Amino acid sequence: MQEKKIVFFEEGTKDMRALLGGKGAGLAEMTRVGLPVPPGFTVTTAACMEYFARGALADDISLGLERAMARLQEQTGKAFGNPTNPLLVSVRSGAAFSMPGMMDTVLNLGLNNEVVHGLSQLTSPVFALDCYRRFIEKYAEIVLKVPHHHFADCLEERKRQARAFHDHELGSEHLSRLIEQYREIVARFSVRPFPESPWEQLVGAVQAVFDSWQNSRAKVYRKLHGISDAAGTAVNVQAMVFGNLGSTSGTGVCFTRNPSTGAKGLFGEYLASAQGEDVVSGTRTPERVSVMGDFLPEAYGQLLRVASQLETHYRDMQDIEFTVERGKLYLLQTRAGKRSAAAAVRIAVEMLAEGLITTPEALLRVTPEQIELMLHRAVDYKQPLTELTRGLPASPGAATGAIVFDNEGALRLTKAQRKTILLRPETSPDDIQGIIASEGIITSRGGMTSHAAVVARGMGKPCVCGAESVRIDLATRTARIGEHSFVEGDIISLDGQNGKVFLGAVPLVEPEPGREFAHLLSMADDAARLAVRANADNPHDAALAKSFGAKGIGLCRTEHMFMETERLPIMQAMIMAEHEEDRQFALQKLLPMQRSDFTGILKAMNGFPVTIRLLDPPLHEFLPAQHELEAEIAKATTHAARVKAERALRVVEQLHESNPMLGHRGCRLGITAPSVYAMQVEAIADAVFDLLSEGYDPRPEIMIPLVGHHRELIITRRLVESTWGMVEKRRGQRLTVPIGTMIEIPRACLVAGELAKHADFFSFGTNDLTQTTFGFSRDDVEGKFLPAYIAQDILTHNPFAVLDREGVGRLMRLAMTEGRAAKPSLKIGICGEHGGEANSIAFCSELGLDYVSCSPYRVPVARFAAGRALYLGEEQADK
Amino acid sequence: MQEKKIVFFEEGTKDMRALLGGKGAGLAEMTRVGLPVPPGFTVTTAACMEYFARGALADDISLGLERAMARLQEQTGKAFGNPTNPLLVSVRSGAAFSMPGMMDTVLNLGLNNEVVHGLSQLTSPVFALDCYRRFIEKYAEIVLKVPHHHFADCLEERKRQARAFHDHELGSEHLSRLIEQYREIVARFSVRPFPESPWEQLVGAVQAVFDSWQNSRAKVYRKLHGISDAAGTAVNVQAMVFGNLGSTSGTGVCFTRNPSTGAKGLFGEYLASAQGEDVVSGTRTPERVSVMGDFLPEAYGQLLRVASQLETHYRDMQDIEFTVERGKLYLLQTRAGKRSAAAAVRIAVEMLAEGLITTPEALLRVTPEQIELMLHRAVDYKQPLTELTRGLPASPGAATGAIVFDNEGALRLTKAQRKTILLRPETSPDDIQGIIASEGIITSRGGMTSHAAVVARGMGKPCVCGAESVRIDLATRTARIGEHSFVEGDIISLDGQNGKVFLGAVPLVEPEPGREFAHLLSMADDAARLAVRANADNPHDAALAKSFGAKGIGLCRTEHMFMETERLPIMQAMIMAEHEEDRQFALQKLLPMQRSDFTGILKAMNGFPVTIRLLDPPLHEFLPAQHELEAEIAKATTHAARVKAERALRVVEQLHESNPMLGHRGCRLGITAPSVYAMQVEAIADAVFDLLSEGYDPRPEIMIPLVGHHRELIITRRLVESTWGMVEKRRGQRLTVPIGTMIEIPRACLVAGELAKHADFFSFGTNDLTQTTFGFSRDDVEGKFLPAYIAQDILTHNPFAVLDREGVGRLMRLAMTEGRAAKPSLKIGICGEHGGEANSIAFCSELGLDYVSCSPYRVPVARFAAGRALYLGEEQADK
Repeated sequence: MQEKKIVFFEEGTKDMRALLGGKGAGLAEMTRVGLPVPPGFTVTTAACMEYFARGALADDISLGLERAMARLQEQTGKAFGNPTNPLLVSVRSGAAFSMPGMMDTVLNLGLNNEVVHGLSQLTSPVFALDCYRRFIEKYAEIVLKVPHHHFADCLEERKRQARAFHDHELGSEHLSRLIEQYREIVARFSVRPFPESPWEQLVGAVQAVFDSWQNSRAKVYRKLHGISDAAGTAVNVQAMVFGNLGSTSGTGVCFTRNPSTGAKGLFGEYLASAQGEDVVSGTRTPERVSVMGDFLPEAYGQLLRVASQLETHYRDMQDIEFTVERGKLYLLQTRAGKRSAAAAVRIAVEMLAEGLITTPEALLRVTPEQIELMLHRAVDYKQPLTELTRGLPASPGAATGAIVFDNEGALRLTKAQRKTILLRPETSPDDIQGIIASEGIITSRGGMTSHAAVVARGMGKPCVCGAESVRIDLATRTARIGEHSFVEGDIISLDGQNGKVFLGAVPLVEPEPGREFAHLLSMADDAARLAVRANADNPHDAALAKSFGAKGIGLCRTEHMFMETERLPIMQAMIMAEHEEDRQFALQKLLPMQRSDFTGILKAMNGFPVTIRLLDPPLHEFLPAQHELEAEIAKATTHAARVKAERALRVVEQLHESNPMLGHRGCRLGITAPSVYAMQVEAIADAVFDLLSEGYDPRPEIMIPLVGHHRELIITRRLVESTWGMVEKRRGQRLTVPIGTMIEIPRACLVAGELAKHADFFSFGTNDLTQTTFGFSRDDVEGKFLPAYIAQDILTHNPFAVLDREGVGRLMRLAMTEGRAAKPSLKIGICGEHGGEANSIAFCSELGLDYVSCSPYRVPVARFAAGRALYLGEEQADK
Repeated sequence: MQEKKIVFFEEGTKDMRALLGGKGAGLAEMTRVGLPVPPGFTVTTAACMEYFARGALADDISLGLERAMARLQEQTGKAFGNPTNPLLVSVRSGAAFSMPGMMDTVLNLGLNNEVVHGLSQLTSPVFALDCYRRFIEKYAEIVLKVPHHHFADCLEERKRQARAFHDHELGSEHLSRLIEQYREIVARFSVRPFPESPWEQLVGAVQAVFDSWQNSRAKVYRKLHGISDAAGTAVNVQAMVFGNLGSTSGTGVCFTRNPSTGAKGLFGEYLASAQGEDVVSGTRTPERVSVMGDFLPEAYGQLLRVASQLETHYRDMQDIEFTVERGKLYLLQTRAGKRSAAAAVRIAVEMLAEGLITTPEALLRVTPEQIELMLHRAVDYKQPLTELTRGLPASPGAATGAIVFDNEGALRLTKAQRKTILLRPETSPDDIQGIIASEGIITSRGGMTSHAAVVARGMGKPCVCGAESVRIDLATRTARIGEHSFVEGDIISLDGQNGKVFLGAVPLVEPEPGREFAHLLSMADDAARLAVRANADNPHDAALAKSFGAKGIGLCRTEHMFMETERLPIMQAMIMAEHEEDRQFALQKLLPMQRSDFTGILKAMNGFPVTIRLLDPPLHEFLPAQHELEAEIAKATTHAARVKAERALRVVEQLHESNPMLGHRGCRLGITAPSVYAMQVEAIADAVFDLLSEGYDPRPEIMIPLVGHHRELIITRRLVESTWGMVEKRRGQRLTVPIGTMIEIPRACLVAGELAKHADFFSFGTNDLTQTTFGFSRDDVEGKFLPAYIAQDILTHNPFAVLDREGVGRLMRLAMTEGRAAKPSLKIGICGEHGGEANSIAFCSELGLDYVSCSPYRVPVARFAAGRALYLGEEQADK
């Protein structure tokens, strides 16, 4: 069936967005339900696509336009091009998806040298001439491609001569002169003469609006928002109404609820005797919409009724444009209103309470990004700010503080009660103290999954990464950003939500999630099929996670525990032990430390599951770097120190790997050095039995990392079971501990059916699974080819941020299906970075996972994403 | 159905191996076809497994044994335990799979203090006493677990007293005394007394043979040969016949064809008046079997007929054990004879010609390992050798030469016309000149897929890796192996087939594959579903591959071409170029060099396809190491040199990757730096059109590496096509070039259906696919955890040597299925190391690949493996 090329407002409905565009569908719907909309019609997206295909307006469209104008003349009782009773129209673009400001609009079309005289008789000379002046300016710019600055310069010169400050202060003589000058400009710079014929004007404007779909800013916008280039735009042709015909006329924009707070009630602005442009241009300051009630009580009353009717009709907060022409209210547009995060939450919760929307709708009205925004301090953009540069929005939230360049500076300044911002080219695990001490982090290199970004997100600290214009000199502890120079202690601010960096202290707004927020999250919990757990390695994080609503710990890494200052030397002694007894000696010293870690975490998560992953990283991560040891050897003053460093160097060289990511770690360590895993299991078991004795309800789960072959799992599981059994015997206590495996390399997915026979649970480690499935090194990819991949549209997202459904996701699905087929009771979760990302959570929910696990600060977002995941339906993803 | 516990020889057939064991099935079959076999029966493997399950002989088995002995007495007309007409039996193990020497045998069972007197009357006292002495010794050892050395010491003392040099020189008195002493030893050391009752002897012997299945050497043997522990062994109880009853008796072993050469005709040894043991113990030297013809013409004639009958019956060369008792021939065993590689080939080809076997059988009678053996020089193990140590058999073949420790030494000595052996801790690309110059390589570190091993196999040079007892001091250019010290120039030898290293020059045997070999390979070619191509990067290797029968080049790497001495600086200049014009300048210098490479290779492979892979490794592989540049900076004498080195260092630092395997390489380079690929394509196209003009038939195929997303392929393919088209235009010539992709990361397999739409062919890169599927770094795995994985039975093979069917293979199957579904004409090959490994080739054939590609020297083995792959049937693999 061929789609219609022209549809009158009274013929369409709100469901015809694809054909009529958003604006056209809105105007049609309002017309259909009997609201006062100036009459008009839509040249559809189908016409647009045909226009693009042919490179010209098809005959049937031209003919249709003629017929439509004839009908519009009938409807309005006015005539196009007739000076005594002129019909003027607006020509506006309107695509299916809102692209604000991206495409073009022409108002007052139908004016020419003759008609303007008629119009001035019907209204006033100043009004008519000003309309005409604006029309020529806009038409020339949009249709005839005359650079705008010619008109702007001319207008400025005219105002100077007229000693006018604002445009509307120009009298009719100046306006007449201006119109002459404008037409001269057109004659000189346009490819075509200015069309006197209204019909020619109309055809040119329609084509120009179609063409504007292809302009570069529209293309960029579409790419950014994932809108198809093949959608096309519609064009709305509508009879003009005028808000600038004196005090009984005016124009305004209003929301049916407050877009900042979400409070119910008409909220908006009104400008008497003005056209929409005047509101937008900011030349006059509009008043609150309620003032209309004083001047135009009838129209205002009608507006209140109409607003309420529209909100009920659309079941969403509306953003309404209207004009009053000589006391009569006209609606020009209605659409779902943009709103702040707080307003989104409040409106969703209140509309649900009002019975206007359903629970699924309420959940879908708020985005996970909005939930996230509400949890962080934000920059108050209403205040004047000096933006220095912009990097990547690596971790949300805003912070202000004194610049520091290293751990030492951060610790010194925080000791002096100052808040600090850590500024570094990039960060490494060495910088962890500085990160902990600081309010926020800025790096000049690295991307969204760089060390700084990952650590900052994990800690809930704001971070801007890859701010490339920041030049840091670590030696002198100075930095330059643009023309500004900084030394340690200088104040700087950042907004991790958008990557902006500001000079000095900026005003911050504290997060106040409030009652509705809590209500929405609990609705999400009720709706979710997925539980949300947290990744936490210490009691503090465990408690924090619980306070955010985590239902357990999905990943407790045990390696961070060995990194602590007093433990590292013992860990190193264990690694460098030449004899088993030396190794045992070191392990026996580590055992009580590990036990107290586990006691703390299990206590904090009392009654909830805690998945403890046995040691994962390669042992060389615990040793000093080769060059450090070489330096140490070079400057050793005693023979003993030298020998010791040399021995360490030998071990480091021996443990060196060309690709540590694919190296000797995870269960591979457990198999070649079982005493470490045995010590860890013993520590867990002792912690558990201590807590049981004290009346707690510890629920440990032991997770074996990096399994790729079922024999690895069998052997490691046997080690865990025998150690656990030994402690049970020693303590005379018993508890069944679930033993499971990470699924983080492709082979594990491929043999999941076999693994499931020996596992009580699976936990997808999608960080490593993404690395191995793509063959991408997470540590390297962002600085190298990933930006080019995004730019060239090979990838739409960084796959370490948003889970790759086609590749990694397919392996996950395979593992799920075959794992559950082999063992229906198998519990399955995910504990990679993706566990806290909404799109990925939606995919996990769709797959049927039991839980996701993410950093504590992301728990609320994850809970919300999990709750709405089921309702995303066919869209699947948010983007 | 319950399986029979006891089966008489006349009741069984050769197809009952699983139940009767190999020996039992052989005896049954010979009995069935009417050959002279001493009567007897088999206690089956089913009885064995029941025995293991119960821990004792079941009543029905005991009862069965009694009944069987009664029947055996009837058949022989002798009586068990009857001194006047004693029945003596042998009790021998016999599993379904041959486990030579692994389990126990008891002869002459049924003797006791009474029976021995009867036997001495029937034969002679010395014979009877000797039988009894041997029986006690063996029975005590095997059944009563008395350590053998007690008897050996006692026998030696007795011989000293008797002034006898050989056992058989002892007279009856000494033997009687010896028997008394033996029984004293038994009384003192045995857990049980020596059973006088023959029946008790029999039950004890049967149980002991069953038990011997579980002894540690049998377990190790089974593990080594992949034999299931659950198979169990059978026990054969057979009436004794005696070859040591004077000159009309004797014993022998013969083959129906020569096991060294394969020549047809009886070949073997005969020892008159002797028992089998005497042949084995080597106390007397047997004569050629044909001497039997002189002494015992009738029995010899019968042996010739029987041998021929057995070969025809079993349709394979037989290894026959026989005994002549007073002129009467008895067959004790027949089985397929072990043979040399050359014999295997000749026998297979000749038996096929004789119509004895079919083509598939002929192909399956020879193993790929035997084909490989025939292509390499071998150590002549018949000569005296001094073995120094043993490492891993990294690359087959044998070599002798002067030790060198580095490139410089290798070049110096080869210049002086000496053959060299490169001895290094391990090798790296820096050692390539030394490897090329040397006859063989020995390393003290590294495994079967270390750099040395891979390069040596690629060059067809013998190599022993990981010979850990070799201590090398590179500084002094000396080495120690055990007690021996070596300096440069000392002669050493190695056998890459078994990993042995020898002192001095050892005699080598040149390979002479011969006529039958060529015939067998051409049979394989006819039978194969897979074509065999070679991996070759230069005209020399291409010609070599063609001479070995390669049907094209499956992988022409382009990176080695840039490593050559005169090209590397240009490549480096290209990489370090700061401006596009500098890069173009360098590329334009590389272009003609690349073109001449391609011209040479395409010419050498005229008429056959040549798959050229665009640049694959990360760019930092072409730059000096960081520490080298640091050293260069430190010792720079001019400002310019210093600046240059500093700049290089900056680039090296910038290109540094934590996991280069997962890094910025392959098509990722092609996408971020398209000018390199464009230059390569231009060089290929120019080479092709030059050759076309000269009347050649070049068949290039362009392969894009490391693709994981279809958009990568689309973009890179577009680049290749547009460059190709540009050259076509410039030259005014046209040729369609197939463009395909490597499939070497898991994601490529997962989206193969999408990739196939944009690819003319797939080539599996199973080296990288194995790395990413397992998460194993090939460079690291062998020195770290792989040995433990093999030892603990997690993996049966190094997955980089033998393709992992369960994981990697599953991904390959997926990619094949979905790729071919999307494009039925898709050509699919493999070009990893697995392409030259027989087990992996069998899998590729089963999957339905079109070709395998391997190093030139492996082409014959691959052709053979491809030919027999189809006939491997249910076994699938060779192991």
